[in-house]
Amino acid sequence: MTASLDPRTGLPVVAMVGGGQLSRMTHQAAIALGQSLRVLAADPAESAALVAADVQLGDHRDLADLRRLAEGATVVTFDHEHVPTEHLRALEADGTRVAPGPAALVHAQDKLVLRRALADAGEPQPAWAEVSTVPAVAAFADEVGWPVVLKTPRGGYDGKGVFVVHGPDQVAELLEQHGTLLAEERVPMLRELSAQVARSPFGQVAVWPVVETVQRDGVCNEVYAPAPGLGEELATAAQELAVRIADRLGVVGMLAVELFETADGVLVNELAMRPHNSGHWSIDGAVTSQFEQHLRAVLDYPLGSTAMTAPVVVMANVLGGDAAAEDWSGPGLDERIHHCMAHWPDVKLHWYGKGQRRGRKLGHVTALGTDLAEVRARAVAAARYLADGVVDPAFAFDDDEH
Amino acid sequence: MTASLDPRTGLPVVAMVGGGQLSRMTHQAAIALGQSLRVLAADPAESAALVAADVQLGDHRDLADLRRLAEGATVVTFDHEHVPTEHLRALEADGTRVAPGPAALVHAQDKLVLRRALADAGEPQPAWAEVSTVPAVAAFADEVGWPVVLKTPRGGYDGKGVFVVHGPDQVAELLEQHGTLLAEERVPMLRELSAQVARSPFGQVAVWPVVETVQRDGVCNEVYAPAPGLGEELATAAQELAVRIADRLGVVGMLAVELFETADGVLVNELAMRPHNSGHWSIDGAVTSQFEQHLRAVLDYPLGSTAMTAPVVVMANVLGGDAAAEDWSGPGLDERIHHCMAHWPDVKLHWYGKGQRRGRKLGHVTALGTDLAEVRARAVAAARYLADGVVDPAFAFDDDEH
Repeated sequence: MTASLDPRTGLPVVAMVGGGQLSRMTHQAAIALGQSLRVLAADPAESAALVAADVQLGDHRDLADLRRLAEGATVVTFDHEHVPTEHLRALEADGTRVAPGPAALVHAQDKLVLRRALADAGEPQPAWAEVSTVPAVAAFADEVGWPVVLKTPRGGYDGKGVFVVHGPDQVAELLEQHGTLLAEERVPMLRELSAQVARSPFGQVAVWPVVETVQRDGVCNEVYAPAPGLGEELATAAQELAVRIADRLGVVGMLAVELFETADGVLVNELAMRPHNSGHWSIDGAVTSQFEQHLRAVLDYPLGSTAMTAPVVVMANVLGGDAAAEDWSGPGLDERIHHCMAHWPDVKLHWYGKGQRRGRKLGHVTALGTDLAEVRARAVAAARYLADGVVDPAFAFDDDEH
Repeated sequence: MTASLDPRTGLPVVAMVGGGQLSRMTHQAAIALGQSLRVLAADPAESAALVAADVQLGDHRDLADLRRLAEGATVVTFDHEHVPTEHLRALEADGTRVAPGPAALVHAQDKLVLRRALADAGEPQPAWAEVSTVPAVAAFADEVGWPVVLKTPRGGYDGKGVFVVHGPDQVAELLEQHGTLLAEERVPMLRELSAQVARSPFGQVAVWPVVETVQRDGVCNEVYAPAPGLGEELATAAQELAVRIADRLGVVGMLAVELFETADGVLVNELAMRPHNSGHWSIDGAVTSQFEQHLRAVLDYPLGSTAMTAPVVVMANVLGGDAAAEDWSGPGLDERIHHCMAHWPDVKLHWYGKGQRRGRKLGHVTALGTDLAEVRARAVAAARYLADGVVDPAFAFDDDEH
């Protein structure tokens, strides 16, 4: 099938399912490439719908909406994993290019499918079992010990759908509620890492430095690039692992391989086949951001350089905090941004335009430099001030700045 | 007047008159700040109209269209200088914040007004005279020698409205056609420089390194940041000159001071009070781009760091060339972009989405590095390949890349 080009520009049209911040930042990258992202949003107030010219309102579970989105588009891609596999197959049957394709994407949609595939490939992962009865869980716990981690195979994200159970008495209710679950050993991990790779249909791959991710309540909160103190051997092993997985599964676009680092090496936690929170640092911190690279990859363009633009880059998420509360009486958002800019003129702000709600990802900030402690201090203080309106005593404003 | 905020986001709405590439790149910067630029475009196919969510079609010379644009906007700003002064005064009388204001902007609109203001301020500029008769031009030429440069006070850009006359016989026709003109000595210049400064209503200013600009047929073609071989003393003097002008004229937003470098120092050529071609390098080459800074300045946000992200940055414009011809039989635009990405994975592309036409600014590329000759070679070769589909022998592709 010949690729469709926008007759106004002579350039491709990428259609993205989902109107969240990933879509918003992909549109930003598309602008530089002469393109305009087409967005399928559920609501006109969604993050990407506020800024993109070509927005379709619809439901990602509705095949008719997906077909309308695909009309005249060069390729259809995603800012989340929730499109039903059968709809993706139907789009492919229509002749639509879907990237990543359903056969790859299912490994990011279904944790049991992923575990089986990694087992077949002999890749390192936690001990696991498919469980649908209490005795099955108890038998698994006999092998790996309590607590056991139970996960819903589908639909979980940001810590949702993950349950740490300390004995068999909590299991029955979870099985009743969710059906078959994935049981995993609780890994004695040192920290979490993320290895990102982009892969094009041609088979070109590009990797970024492996990063350390820090979660808070299951939500990504900070990212350090490169992962501090990670030996070159382990870093290379993690990158090679990510490339092998991308190749074996036929991923097209961005792949984030979330890893547990243990005393014995790395284990695969889960996959995301789209731009991912662990790669937001690359907008300011790499020659080619994950968003531009995702566009290049799904279009089968050659991939861009992933070199870092500074020795140390720290990304800190702004999660809705005290300042998102209804009874908040401190400085409003616009004022907080004002103070943030005044105090940290070299911290890069990325605000998603979403309504403020506690725990919600509202934006992120990026700081660049050479010393991790200094760079992290700047990023975290700026993010905390934006979220909670609180000035960390360690990074107090001067009096005359207030 | 209290600033208007977008009720959906709690953040300001900047409205920009003009839908060209400057507006397009300002929208890109607005996205990171949680905003969505409101654009007044003359045509839905304009560069910014293709990518922005909030586009109004209208005429920048029509006060009703301008008033509609201003409704609910925090501030109105410009991607060109062509809005009539009386309309800007009318908007201000309505209570609309206009940045830069009409009293400042007129110095970028009318070259005679600028010359008078610089003379009053005692700032360095070429010898000049206001002329409306042939004898007046001849008398001026007696002082400064032929050739004399005649300029239309208003409406010129990219070399249009500029005439180099070598004797009195060419003058009558120009005066008849254009009325009163600005006569200037032809400056024995070494090269052209640009000093950019952002200024906020609060009076904060931020300067970038002074750059060298290289024109082709009166159109900016290449920019080297920082200006190579420029002594620190002269660089500082040029930055201070730009700041003095911004202060004196009350500029709000970006100001580009285009300069002639001569054996005796710098002379002011002309001003632009908006993001300017000489600052495109800052998107990839500075912590804060001129586009983000323009938004910060017109919103009276604190200004961002102007530090460079690499020692040497070169921007090369892609002007419509052979490949824009109707009978072009070489690789199409999408294919040229493909090859460009393959050959220069670290050159940053900025494509404006406009129809291809010879001489038209279609996009630009930016290269970063440490050695000017190497960095320039990459940027120029990439731009030339995009424009003309010609591979410079000095930067030939390997056979197996074709």
